[in-house]
Amino acid sequence: MNFRTTILAVCLLLPIIGGCASAPERAADPLPSWRKTAARDSIVDFVERVTDPDGPDFVPVAERVAVFDNDGTLWSEQPIYFQFEFAVELARRAVGERPELGTEEPFRTAIEGEPIDFLTAGSAGLLRLLLATHSGTTTDEFSDAGTTWFRDARHPTTGLPYTAMVYQPMLELLEYLERNEFSNWIVSGGDADFIRVFAEATYGIPPERVIGSQMELEHRSTPEGVGLIRTPGFAVFNDGPQKVISIHRAIGRRPVAAFGNSDGDLEMLEWTAGGEGPTLCAYLHHTDEVREWAYDRGSKIGALDRGLDTAEARSWPVIDMKRDWKVVFPDPQ
Amino acid sequence: MNFRTTILAVCLLLPIIGGCASAPERAADPLPSWRKTAARDSIVDFVERVTDPDGPDFVPVAERVAVFDNDGTLWSEQPIYFQFEFAVELARRAVGERPELGTEEPFRTAIEGEPIDFLTAGSAGLLRLLLATHSGTTTDEFSDAGTTWFRDARHPTTGLPYTAMVYQPMLELLEYLERNEFSNWIVSGGDADFIRVFAEATYGIPPERVIGSQMELEHRSTPEGVGLIRTPGFAVFNDGPQKVISIHRAIGRRPVAAFGNSDGDLEMLEWTAGGEGPTLCAYLHHTDEVREWAYDRGSKIGALDRGLDTAEARSWPVIDMKRDWKVVFPDPQ
Repeated sequence: MNFRTTILAVCLLLPIIGGCASAPERAADPLPSWRKTAARDSIVDFVERVTDPDGPDFVPVAERVAVFDNDGTLWSEQPIYFQFEFAVELARRAVGERPELGTEEPFRTAIEGEPIDFLTAGSAGLLRLLLATHSGTTTDEFSDAGTTWFRDARHPTTGLPYTAMVYQPMLELLEYLERNEFSNWIVSGGDADFIRVFAEATYGIPPERVIGSQMELEHRSTPEGVGLIRTPGFAVFNDGPQKVISIHRAIGRRPVAAFGNSDGDLEMLEWTAGGEGPTLCAYLHHTDEVREWAYDRGSKIGALDRGLDTAEARSWPVIDMKRDWKVVFPDPQ
Repeated sequence: MNFRTTILAVCLLLPIIGGCASAPERAADPLPSWRKTAARDSIVDFVERVTDPDGPDFVPVAERVAVFDNDGTLWSEQPIYFQFEFAVELARRAVGERPELGTEEPFRTAIEGEPIDFLTAGSAGLLRLLLATHSGTTTDEFSDAGTTWFRDARHPTTGLPYTAMVYQPMLELLEYLERNEFSNWIVSGGDADFIRVFAEATYGIPPERVIGSQMELEHRSTPEGVGLIRTPGFAVFNDGPQKVISIHRAIGRRPVAAFGNSDGDLEMLEWTAGGEGPTLCAYLHHTDEVREWAYDRGSKIGALDRGLDTAEARSWPVIDMKRDWKVVFPDPQ
C-alpha cells in the first residue's frame, strides 16, 4: 500500500468514526447557483476566514450571527410587497362577511381595484390598509389566515405561489451559513407574525429568529382562555434605524454578517460593519428585468440609492442578480 | 459469556461508537440538590413524558421552550431587587462625577441613605431611580458598567457576590432541561441588558434568550461610529400580561414549561398552561427564613398571592424552598 492509497483508505474509513466527515462537503460547491464572480468569492472567503480556528479572523460559534432583510433580499417584492397582496385579500374577505364595509376605505379600493392601486395612492393608503386588515383577530387566527393564503394565493404576474418566489442562491447561502454554524435571522420591515407563517418551512429560520414589524397586542382573558388580540397600531415599525434597535433588543449582540437590498437596510449594514472583528455586509442589486425585476434608485418599492453609494464607498460586495446568479427562483418540483 | 455479561460488555463498548452514551447519564440523579418530593417528581415526570418519542405526550425539540422568571426564581430578590442595588451604585457614581446632582432626587437618597430606602418610599421613587440611572449611556457603556458592578459588589446581608446568590437547584434544572433539548429563556421584569451581563456565564442562557424590560433606545450616528443611546423611558415594562406579549413577540410560540415566584408571573404561567399539549407550570415558594427568605402574600418584593391560590386550584407544583431543596446557593469554590 503506497502513501496515496493509505491516505485514500484512511479517508474512506475515517467518516465511520467521525473523522473526515467534512471533507466531501468542502469539496462540493456550497453555492451551486452562484457564478464564480467577486461577490461569491467575498462570501466564501469571509466564511472560510471566520470559521478557521487557527486563523486571525476566527469568530466563535455563538457570535456567528447573520441578519437578512426579507422583501427583495430573500424573496421578490414586486410589483408590491407580498404582504400587501395578503392584506388586500383580507380586506376582500372582510367585505364578504360585512358588505357594509365596502363603501369605506381601504375596503372600497380593495374590492374595486388591484393591490397595486394602494401603492399608487401612496404610503398613507398602504398604512391604512395594513392597520385595518392586520388587526382585530387573535395572533392564532392571523397565523391561520396566513397559512390559508400562502396555500391558495398566486403572484399576479408569474402565477407562482409566493413561497416559490424565494431566491435559490439565497437559500443556498442560508444553508451554507448554517452548515458553518452561523445563526441566520430575518430582520424585516414586514410583519413578524406574517413572516413566521412560512419562514421555517421555506428558509429553515424558526419563529424565534424572525424580527419584524409588530402590531400592538392586547392580552385578553376570558372564560374560554387567554388570547393575544392584534390591535390597530404599530408597536414597532421595523425599518431603517429601527432595524438596529430591534436587533439589539432581540439578539443582544452585533451581527457579523448582514444582507439587504434597499436603503431601509443601510443602518443595519452600517451597524454590522461597525463591529470589532471581521464582518461581511452585502447588498443585493436587482438588475435582472428578464428573470426577475430591475430597479434601484427611483423605485417605489425597495429603493436602493444611498445604499448603493455607501456600498461603493466602503467596498461592500454588491450582488448583481443578472451577473452573479445562474438561476433566480428554485426549480419547480 | 452469559446474557448479563454480554449486555454489560455491549454497554461498555457502545459509548465508544456513540450508542449507549445516554445510559450512564440517566442513571445519575439529574437534580441532586432536590429532595425527592412531589415537586421534583412532577418535573422529572414531565421531562420524561415529553421526551419519550414513543409516548403520547412527546413534544418535538423545536417546541421544547421553557421560560423562567429571574428575580426570586433563578436568584434572590431580597431585601430589594439586585438591579436596584446596581442603580444606587450608578447614582452614587454620577454624584461623584457631578456633585451638583447630590441635591436632587433620586441622587440625594442614593448618597445619604440605603437602597432599601427607595423601596420604603414606594414605586414612584424606584421608577425615578431606574429612569435616572439606566439612561444617558450607550448600550455598550451600560453593559461595561454592569460587568464592573458584578465583579465588585457584594450583597448587603450575605456579603456574597450577587452571582453567587443564584439557586443551585434551579441551575441543575436549567441544565437538566438543556440536556433534554429544551431551550431555556429568561422572561424577567428586570432590564434585559442588565441580565445579559451575567446570564450566559451564570445560567448558560445566551443574550438572545433574555427577554426583559427595555429602555427606549435612540440610534445615534456620529463620525466616530453608530451608538444606541439608552433614553429615560420604558419601551417595555415586562411584568404581568406584558410577559405574555413579550414571549409572543420574541419567541413566536407558546412555551411548554414556565417557572415563576410572584403574581407578576401568573399570566405567563396561565398562557403556558393554556397550550394544547402537555405543560408544566410551577411556582417557587420562598419558605426558608434560615437559608434564604420567607415571604409571599404581603411582601413588598415578589408578592405571591393570586398565584398561590391559582397554583392550588389548578394543581400546579409549588416548590417549597425549605422542604424541597437540600441546598439553596451553590457551594462556594
